[in-house]
Amino acid sequence: MKLATLKNGSRDGQLVLVSRDNNWAMQVDAVAQTLQQALENWASAEPRLRLLAEELNAGRAVGAFSFDASQAMAPLPRAYQWCDGSAFLSHGALMQKAFNLKPIEGADLTPLMYQGAGDDFLGGRDDIPLPSEAQGIDFEGEFGVLVDEVLMGCSAEQALQHIKLIVQINDVSLRALAPREMITGFGFLQAKPSSSFAPLALTPDELGVAWDNGRVQLPLQVQWNGKWFGHPHGGEMNFHFGQLIAHAALTRRLRAGTVIGSGTVSNSDRSVGSACIAERRAIEMIGQGSAQTAFMRFGDRVQMEVLGSDGRSLFGGIDQRVVQAKV
Amino acid sequence: MKLATLKNGSRDGQLVLVSRDNNWAMQVDAVAQTLQQALENWASAEPRLRLLAEELNAGRAVGAFSFDASQAMAPLPRAYQWCDGSAFLSHGALMQKAFNLKPIEGADLTPLMYQGAGDDFLGGRDDIPLPSEAQGIDFEGEFGVLVDEVLMGCSAEQALQHIKLIVQINDVSLRALAPREMITGFGFLQAKPSSSFAPLALTPDELGVAWDNGRVQLPLQVQWNGKWFGHPHGGEMNFHFGQLIAHAALTRRLRAGTVIGSGTVSNSDRSVGSACIAERRAIEMIGQGSAQTAFMRFGDRVQMEVLGSDGRSLFGGIDQRVVQAKV
Repeated sequence: MKLATLKNGSRDGQLVLVSRDNNWAMQVDAVAQTLQQALENWASAEPRLRLLAEELNAGRAVGAFSFDASQAMAPLPRAYQWCDGSAFLSHGALMQKAFNLKPIEGADLTPLMYQGAGDDFLGGRDDIPLPSEAQGIDFEGEFGVLVDEVLMGCSAEQALQHIKLIVQINDVSLRALAPREMITGFGFLQAKPSSSFAPLALTPDELGVAWDNGRVQLPLQVQWNGKWFGHPHGGEMNFHFGQLIAHAALTRRLRAGTVIGSGTVSNSDRSVGSACIAERRAIEMIGQGSAQTAFMRFGDRVQMEVLGSDGRSLFGGIDQRVVQAKV
Repeated sequence: MKLATLKNGSRDGQLVLVSRDNNWAMQVDAVAQTLQQALENWASAEPRLRLLAEELNAGRAVGAFSFDASQAMAPLPRAYQWCDGSAFLSHGALMQKAFNLKPIEGADLTPLMYQGAGDDFLGGRDDIPLPSEAQGIDFEGEFGVLVDEVLMGCSAEQALQHIKLIVQINDVSLRALAPREMITGFGFLQAKPSSSFAPLALTPDELGVAWDNGRVQLPLQVQWNGKWFGHPHGGEMNFHFGQLIAHAALTRRLRAGTVIGSGTVSNSDRSVGSACIAERRAIEMIGQGSAQTAFMRFGDRVQMEVLGSDGRSLFGGIDQRVVQAKV
């Protein structure tokens, strides 16, 4: 089952079901008008949505209309909680090596995770407005999950059952602002502007065998200004999503609609490239002594795509430009 | 004007106006059913709420009923964004001295701020469920503000105009978990369980001269298990709320309903005591070589109160117990 949220002038948008081939959409107001509503009532909403999805996929849905990805907001346009892990350890290892940082003790045992801002997610075709190129504008290709209610102290195995939807994320980062915020120990804030989401949120079954072991077992294909940048594989995630959820829920419950991110997809095989510029720069620093690749300029385009076994886009893809914010 | 949110079984509760003397409440459904709705439409909601508040304060409101603080949720029971500053520098200075930490460079020029979880705020009379006493359970008495829409790049002076409501916060912290999270640079996550809010959110004018220079110019009276713990004054905030908002908005807009906190109220005059246990422990470490005061035990009670010039509670106060979470 695929869900999307269409722009309708409201902050939460209009929830729709989307057909497996991404061509058709239908409103599901009788079940829920927004994805937040659906997630808060998932046990009753899901079976009803599945019945409608069957009709839509069979071409029998009344009121189906053509799905336009450019009209999609983030599937959940705003979230009461957004926690982003750093679950691909090869990313951290590269950054540490390049910048001569001390390895973070226990980072292979306890996931790294920061609390993000959920109030203003961008859609997968939206421009990314930012104030200054000097802040080191970077994309970060990730996977994420949306959960229903998770109790405090939930185990990693239990947590897997709370994963209701899987999403694809561009976690935009401002690299020039990050070091100061990391040194304070208070974590990222200015360095993490609004994150963007591909149009479609998928139930785990929609991935078939590509959802396995709490991970998306597929490559994430990243292009920067139309050129290949990387295709790291989601299966190399060192902590699975259940572990990330359990980490976030150790001292509090997570309310329905919480978004948990994987962190930049990164592989130990460097030939697959990267899902963020900072990592390519780190590899250049290690191999060539200095970073060769500059960060993004206004007007730059980033595309991120995950293809299913039939060659079709699973999440509807990310295709965005960074632009100068109007102030 | 004072606003509160009463428990009604929903996640967002029932918005009510509360009389200046805290005795009477009235629903305002014709204007907004929830505080989030009111904040998203503040320009039109505020004048209508003020008319109703006049009637309520004059004892002329139809349908007014007795206000019961024990039935109050947090004024905004969940927020799409919660950013907490550390704007009282004497707190940081004490912690650094006690733990022999390097001062954070530029902390007197750029506010410290972490991104918190907004999905599950507690009311001012709610129990605080936590998994383990060994995690170093601490309270933190703070002030906070709720804003309407803030544009990216907003100045500190402009930001003051976006402060629509002032709140009182207990930012519960788990001190044993904080050092690891600070060292990673990713910031607090497990160390910051759900925050609690006193029942009443006040428009700035309700504070009279005690709202000045972007600060609450009043002492915060803190009791632990019925004994005086401190009464530090809000006027000593080194960054005012406008500066904190501008800091958060440097690289993104803040959507209506964002909550910005001051961080623990702390004064350089140590005779006024503290608003969190960690600070008292730091003072003990500096003066006596080791911390004498243990963190909270299950069953412990914390009370936090701010009195107006007439001796009445301004925000309805915080009176909570920490309890063992059921798992």
